Formats: sequence, C-alpha cells, structure tokens
Amino acid sequence: MTFSYDKLKNFTQQVFLKMGCSQEHAEQAADVLLNADLRGVDSHGVARLIGYVRLWEVERVNATPEIKVIHETPSTATIDGDRGLGLVVAPYAMKIAIEKAKVAGTGWVAIKNSNHYGIAGYHSMMALEHDMMGISMTNASALVAPTFSQERMLGTNPIAVACPTNEEPPFVADFSTTTAANGKLEILQRKEEDAPEGWVQDKEGHNTTDSGILKKGGALLPLGGDRVHSSHKGYCLGSIVDIFSAVLSGANYGPWVPPFPSYVPLPENPVGEGIGHFVGAMRVDAFRPAEDYKNHMDNWIRRFRAAKPAPGHDQVIIPGDPERASALIRMKEGIPLLQPVIEDLKGIADKFEIEF
Amino acid sequence: MTFSYDKLKNFTQQVFLKMGCSQEHAEQAADVLLNADLRGVDSHGVARLIGYVRLWEVERVNATPEIKVIHETPSTATIDGDRGLGLVVAPYAMKIAIEKAKVAGTGWVAIKNSNHYGIAGYHSMMALEHDMMGISMTNASALVAPTFSQERMLGTNPIAVACPTNEEPPFVADFSTTTAANGKLEILQRKEEDAPEGWVQDKEGHNTTDSGILKKGGALLPLGGDRVHSSHKGYCLGSIVDIFSAVLSGANYGPWVPPFPSYVPLPENPVGEGIGHFVGAMRVDAFRPAEDYKNHMDNWIRRFRAAKPAPGHDQVIIPGDPERASALIRMKEGIPLLQPVIEDLKGIADKFEIEF
Repeated sequence: MTFSYDKLKNFTQQVFLKMGCSQEHAEQAADVLLNADLRGVDSHGVARLIGYVRLWEVERVNATPEIKVIHETPSTATIDGDRGLGLVVAPYAMKIAIEKAKVAGTGWVAIKNSNHYGIAGYHSMMALEHDMMGISMTNASALVAPTFSQERMLGTNPIAVACPTNEEPPFVADFSTTTAANGKLEILQRKEEDAPEGWVQDKEGHNTTDSGILKKGGALLPLGGDRVHSSHKGYCLGSIVDIFSAVLSGANYGPWVPPFPSYVPLPENPVGEGIGHFVGAMRVDAFRPAEDYKNHMDNWIRRFRAAKPAPGHDQVIIPGDPERASALIRMKEGIPLLQPVIEDLKGIADKFEIEF
Repeated sequence: MTFSYDKLKNFTQQVFLKMGCSQEHAEQAADVLLNADLRGVDSHGVARLIGYVRLWEVERVNATPEIKVIHETPSTATIDGDRGLGLVVAPYAMKIAIEKAKVAGTGWVAIKNSNHYGIAGYHSMMALEHDMMGISMTNASALVAPTFSQERMLGTNPIAVACPTNEEPPFVADFSTTTAANGKLEILQRKEEDAPEGWVQDKEGHNTTDSGILKKGGALLPLGGDRVHSSHKGYCLGSIVDIFSAVLSGANYGPWVPPFPSYVPLPENPVGEGIGHFVGAMRVDAFRPAEDYKNHMDNWIRRFRAAKPAPGHDQVIIPGDPERASALIRMKEGIPLLQPVIEDLKGIADKFEIEF
C-alpha cells in the first residue's frame, strides 16, 4: 500500500508535536524521516517512527531539548544535544558547521548526548545549496565484531559525503562501514533465506550464513568481510567514525553506545553521554574558484558515468543516482509501506488520538 | 639481507641530493621512504627509490620545486607542488594544515601538481605531536574498476587517520580503498600463486583469480570485492579520495592521473596538474579539553584490545599496532631488502657515483 509524501509527512509531524516537540523541531524531524522514505532507505524512514516514540516513552529521548554549543573555535564546535532526537540535533549541528565554513572556510561539529539521527546523507546534503561539501557520520550501538573479535564492539557507523556540482546532480555517498547493513539482513530473515558468506558471524565468532544470527548473539562483519578481503579496513573505518563522533565529543563509544530499541537495557557504566555524531562543511571556494570546482565535478561525474560497463550491466552508477531516482518516483507515485509498518503507524495514531 | 636504518637513510638522502634536491628536501624525502621500510610497508619504501629516480630522469619530477600556496582561508589552503616529489610536497602541506589548526581549530590543505607521496600514514602522523588528529589521502593512477565497470577508473586511493593518545600508543589507520593493495598481488604473482576471489577482474570485467591479471588489462576491485559484499562502498571511498585530492585542488582525477612507472605514457588531454593529495589536522582541544579526549582515547584502545578474540586469534589488533611492532624490530635488527631491490639500489649508486 502506498501513501503520499505530503500525507505521511504531515502525520509524522503530528506525532512529533504530540510528543511535545516544538513546531520547528517536529517539522525538522519529519523532514529527515520522510527524506529516507523518498530516497528508498525504507529502514530509516517512518518505519522507525515507533522506535522514536518508544524511546520518548521510556524517557531516553527529550522532546524539548535545550541544544547547546559547549566548546568552540573559529572552525569547530562541540554540541550537547540534551538527549534530543538526533533528527533535530544533527541538522542544528550541521547549520553551525555551515555558518563556521562561511567565515573560516570549513566548519566541523562534534555532537554528544544525542540519539539516532536518521539517514547520514540528509545532513551531508544540507551543505550542497551553499556550494559546500557536506560530511556526516554517527556511531550506533554495537552490532559489529572487529577483525579477530568475537565480541560486538562497533555500530554500523555510516559515513556520508555530499559534493556539489554545476549541471549534473550532486555526488552523494552514504554508506555503512559494514559488509551489509542490518536492514538487508532483516529482509533475508523475513524471507527465511540465508545470508551470503562474509556478512555475519555467530556468537562464538565462526562464519555463518544464518540471517537470524544477530538475535542469537552473532555479529555483523566490517566492510571487507574477512581478513583475506581486508575486513581490517572496514574495522578501521568504523573505528574512525566512533572516535570522531564520540571520543572527540564526549559521547559513549564502542560497546557503551545506547541501543535504539527501547526495551534493550542501557549499557552499564557509561563513558559519555548519549550517542555521538560528527558533521562538517567545506566551502569549495575555500580551495579554488567555485565554478572551476563545479565544472570539473561535472566532468568527473560524466567521465565515470561513461566508463565502459562490465558484462551484464548497463552503466556505472554515480553515488546518489539510485536514491534520486527513487525520490522522483515516490514523490509522484507515493511511498510504499509494508503492512507491519502500517499497523505500527495506526497504533501510534490511536495512542495520540490523531488521524492516520 | 638486512641493512641498518641509519645507513639506508643516509644512502637514500645522498641519492636525493644527487638528483639536485636541497639538503632539507633530501632529508624529508628520505625520512618518508625509510619510515615505510621501518613500519613494514616494504612496497612504499626504498624499493620505490628507483621509480622516483626514473621519474626525475624523464623530467616528470622537479627536484627543486617552488611549492606555493595559491589559495587560502583561515582553515584551508591549496598548494601547487610545482611537480615536486610528493615525499616533500605533502609534509609541506601538512605543516600548513597544522599551523592553520593552531589558529582556526582545524586546517585542511588540497594539493595539486604533485607526485607519489609515499605512505599516507606518515603525513597523518605529523599531527600527533601537536595533540591533533591527522588525516591524509592521495589519488593515484587508475588500476581499480568501480562497481559494474569494466574500465579502470580509480587508483588504490589510500586514507590515513592518526589519533593522539595519552599513555597508549597512538591509533594510526592507513589503508587503501581496495580489497587488496597492488603490493599483495605482486607477491602472489612472484610466487605464481592464485589471488583470492574478489581481488581482481580480467580486462572484460569477469571475475578471475589470476594474480598477473593487471598486466593483461585487468583491474583491482574496490573494498568489498563484489556488489553482494558492498563493493559500491569501496568505490564511494575511492571516489571521495579522488574528489577531495584532485577536483578540489586542480590536479588530475580518475583515468587522467599520471602513472608512477616512468615508461608508461602520460594520459592524454589532462584535466589538471600532476596528482593530488588532501591532508588535514584537527586540534583535539578544539572539541574538548585535550586531557579528557586523551584519557578516553586510551580507554577506547584498552577496551578494544580487551575484546574477546575470535577462535584462533590471540587479540584484537588496534590500527597501528603491527606497523609499530615492525618499526621496533627493524630499528634494532635492520631492514630486510629483497635481492632485486638491492640490485636496483646498487644501480642507482653506480649511476650517481656514491657508495652503497
């Protein structure tokens, strides 16, 4: 069943208002979630709305945060998100990064005491209209075993980088630092299909293709999969995201990162506050005239799109192409939701006595 | 056969002096190369010295570059390397990044018109003694086929990130954005062994395990290996390195990046000057008090090192551990060189009439 973008966004905004968010925060949070649905990242859109509501119910999310800059220099800031929705805290931080970049050339903001911030790409893309590169990353609760580890130590810790262009659509890379994101594994599990080799290990640290292994204490594997295919590089990437997001900001890191599901107990002896993000903006004209940069960026994209495709493929894809194509279709034809998600949203509507 | 660090470094410095480098540049270039040998990255140490000499002979490397800042803001700069050795240009750029960071909190420098810069890790580590995070990346000539591409479009485009600590040794990640670096493939080829699946494809874009396939028009694969194991993420990473290093700076990108071997013709219709790098430095106390950051960084490292190891492994490794262990041993016991490398160095000694 499909739903119009406007209606779903309006509903989502109503829900955040009912949680006590300000009009501005409710609009911002709904915009981030619906952007994920538009772009085809179904795991990070309204399907997660019930998760945020539950976190608010158990008072792990503060609907009326007083977001504060607690440390700054000309090109940096650190923000205390006051347990607010990451959907609100991260765009706030990104705006500060953009303002810093206007003056100093670049702006970099580390965020502590936040919650899940939706898709990483949304925040990085905020820089584009200012002719800036946007960078965004976040840590997340530990589901990933580093190379040679039996234990889960890192989240899927995504990185997004958005690069402005002239005539071509922007370059937008947005990816987790694991072989497979959790969402893909859940789809296989629902279909009762095996996972490919190199995606997960069991709780003893052995390879497995059991797509339900995370519920049995297993772990996702870092990008690369195994040592032979350089899983240590995925482990490095996930670690860098964790350190920038949390060790720099004062958030929790590694196995101390709070979980998204409200029923999972918080890790004991926290080493910081909430989860952490790290965002940045770089003015392209801080490096060369903007037109020069943009024309070469167009040329980069055209040359890569024109690369001779491998057998069985039509074209080399530019990062951001599939999400943009999805957004075009879904804005016109509506956003398809799975029945369990629809049930969740109906439940929320009943709870808050609003119309779905 | 092993050689002492001091003797090899002195020899290397003599060679750069004979090429016409200044005393300061010769010392700097030798320091970068020998650091690779110490750290066990044999592919990027004195084994490459003959390559630099040959590039100088065909006048692709300028031994007396006038390195210039051509654009800047409080937190950024762009540098024209004047066709100098990357071994000299990149540390120059990193020093500017560090100076910018002292004032603005962070410093970011894009570099054009440079050459191969040795190991990425060296430049990132320059930030450590200033209590700064160091970031370093470079593009390189095209050997890698993006996901769905038959054509080679990207270099192995490495990324290095160094994070300072208090009592623990620093975190230093330094990795190419491919499943396997070229050096590993060459070792297999020398032993006439097959490459694992997921490392390379043949010139038609089909999977292969032929370790000699690069010479037959084949390509390395991005980190992830194939689409099922998220090679598009490795492709994104390699692209980001290419864009930051070259589209921002005005260097050549994608298939236009000049090759390292002096006998390979330069690509036609260049889109920029030389190869590009991108380096950065972030003061940790631009985000929180340095002691807080450093104590938590120590704690991060200790917790990850204490993670329960997977079966068959002793310990989870912290990025930088193996290279540091190698450096300790080789500083004491000497640097082992393969016979072909020794022959190359003897040839250089004869050419320049210096002692090896």
